[in-house]
Amino acid sequence: MPRVTLLAGGVGGARFARGLLACIRPADVTIVGNVGDDLEHWGLSISPDLDTLLYTLTGRIHPEQGWGVAGDTREAMAVVTELGGLDWFILGDRDIGLHLVRSERLRAGEPLSAVTADFARRYGLGARLLPASDDRLRTRIVTPDGELAFQEWLVGRRAADPVRAVRFEGAPGARPAPGVLEAIRHADVIVLAPSNPFVSLDPILAVDGLREAVEARRDRVVAVTPMIGAQAVKGPLAGMLETLGHDVSAVGVASVLAALAAGFVLDDADRERGPDVRALGLRVACVATLMHDAESSAAVARAALSLV
Amino acid sequence: MPRVTLLAGGVGGARFARGLLACIRPADVTIVGNVGDDLEHWGLSISPDLDTLLYTLTGRIHPEQGWGVAGDTREAMAVVTELGGLDWFILGDRDIGLHLVRSERLRAGEPLSAVTADFARRYGLGARLLPASDDRLRTRIVTPDGELAFQEWLVGRRAADPVRAVRFEGAPGARPAPGVLEAIRHADVIVLAPSNPFVSLDPILAVDGLREAVEARRDRVVAVTPMIGAQAVKGPLAGMLETLGHDVSAVGVASVLAALAAGFVLDDADRERGPDVRALGLRVACVATLMHDAESSAAVARAALSLV
Repeated sequence: MPRVTLLAGGVGGARFARGLLACIRPADVTIVGNVGDDLEHWGLSISPDLDTLLYTLTGRIHPEQGWGVAGDTREAMAVVTELGGLDWFILGDRDIGLHLVRSERLRAGEPLSAVTADFARRYGLGARLLPASDDRLRTRIVTPDGELAFQEWLVGRRAADPVRAVRFEGAPGARPAPGVLEAIRHADVIVLAPSNPFVSLDPILAVDGLREAVEARRDRVVAVTPMIGAQAVKGPLAGMLETLGHDVSAVGVASVLAALAAGFVLDDADRERGPDVRALGLRVACVATLMHDAESSAAVARAALSLV
Repeated sequence: MPRVTLLAGGVGGARFARGLLACIRPADVTIVGNVGDDLEHWGLSISPDLDTLLYTLTGRIHPEQGWGVAGDTREAMAVVTELGGLDWFILGDRDIGLHLVRSERLRAGEPLSAVTADFARRYGLGARLLPASDDRLRTRIVTPDGELAFQEWLVGRRAADPVRAVRFEGAPGARPAPGVLEAIRHADVIVLAPSNPFVSLDPILAVDGLREAVEARRDRVVAVTPMIGAQAVKGPLAGMLETLGHDVSAVGVASVLAALAAGFVLDDADRERGPDVRALGLRVACVATLMHDAESSAAVARAALSLV
């Protein structure tokens, strides 16, 4: 069994991870989750990507939303609205319960990695789930109207403002969480999940030493496309590829990741772009990359593993 | 119409206030609520007595509990328990929504009185609801095993530890919230609600200048018994009267409040103790003091008002 380390954002990363865990023994899988999306809201410390990973991999995820807890209620939120509180960021009641516990423990001085590991253990997640960093690192979106916090841009303004640049508050300076560098150094395969390279993978790679550690293992690194044709499977990637000056396609993503990865998984629909990706120095595999269930997720994971 | 100012703790105070609002125009009623019970829990700023007043007087209260919101769910709490968080203090989801908004606004620097006034306005409370103080004042219970925060003693340890003394952290030094002293100075009637004198009324009176302001109006002050026979209507008052060296009865309470009040409402069942209360220099009225519905609450309010 190869040991696999996955660098992952939210929904795409979580669905890929679910497939990976169908192929690889959970004890051999380490997932390094993005924390650039994290925010403080209503005084709660929220880690959307870690939570989507945790909820997805332990059967709790809301299947249609791709975030939050299946069947969750919104009673607290209804009162927040009634009382004129900020209600642009939707939180279900069970989700709030988790944030309350995490916030309390972080305030008491526990690192995010320890809290995350404990939640994963209590929820029966076999794989190791690590935040990229225990230090504060925040993705900021530079728009023509100024700079916005990531969730403010994505959720608060529905990603409507064109992205001129992305920067990471706290980096350099954010140190890798315990175990992250080792998981990259000792993995047999490193997978860059089908996540947005600019706002899901880059904030992981912005952690001190991370990008260098991945580059040093480039021959073991495989990326999976988050694009099918000119569309992102989910989220605002297509628009960002455009405003940041890249080809709006899997090839654009491959060019962004070519220094890091030696293999690239294309969607079957983009099979004819294979030569363009190979021209970037990447090996290519093709598969149906839409991960609508466990089996389709596992097929994508197998395609990625086949490239190393 | 007399202008009435009510000093009130939680459940007894709220039920009395409901009766008062059936007799007196809401615009003529000011309620000064105890903040000594307040606590920070899961990072939330919780004001149990103010909330019980708000929920009761706007039809939201959970009728059996006497605290929390009717029909509230406990989804967040279930997750807190699942994740090993502190779960000795029960919070429903809608209740958490209110605490989230209050906590956020307090953190942003708004005083508790402003947040409370805004909640009262949004929830359609006609009477004025004021916290005794915007400053931090906390009731501490001195037991043979050491000192405990009030809720820790009451809820966490089910009031099992005998009370040797009660003290108020932050007093002296806690200033009256805006409007509190004026409401006492200009009231035609001041009512000390049927609340525990040691842990509901005393922490209000411990606010700088409050006790003196009430004493100065003694001829206008009426207290309502929270005792029927040797039993408190609710809560740990009987045991406290005993360990603090008072008669375990309405007479014990009247003796504690005799310097402040000129009138005292006894329960019908304690009619024969009337002379003992009069001997303390108090006028007496008798009524059925169990406030199980709006009509019985109004009868108690009328009895209190009759004494001034």
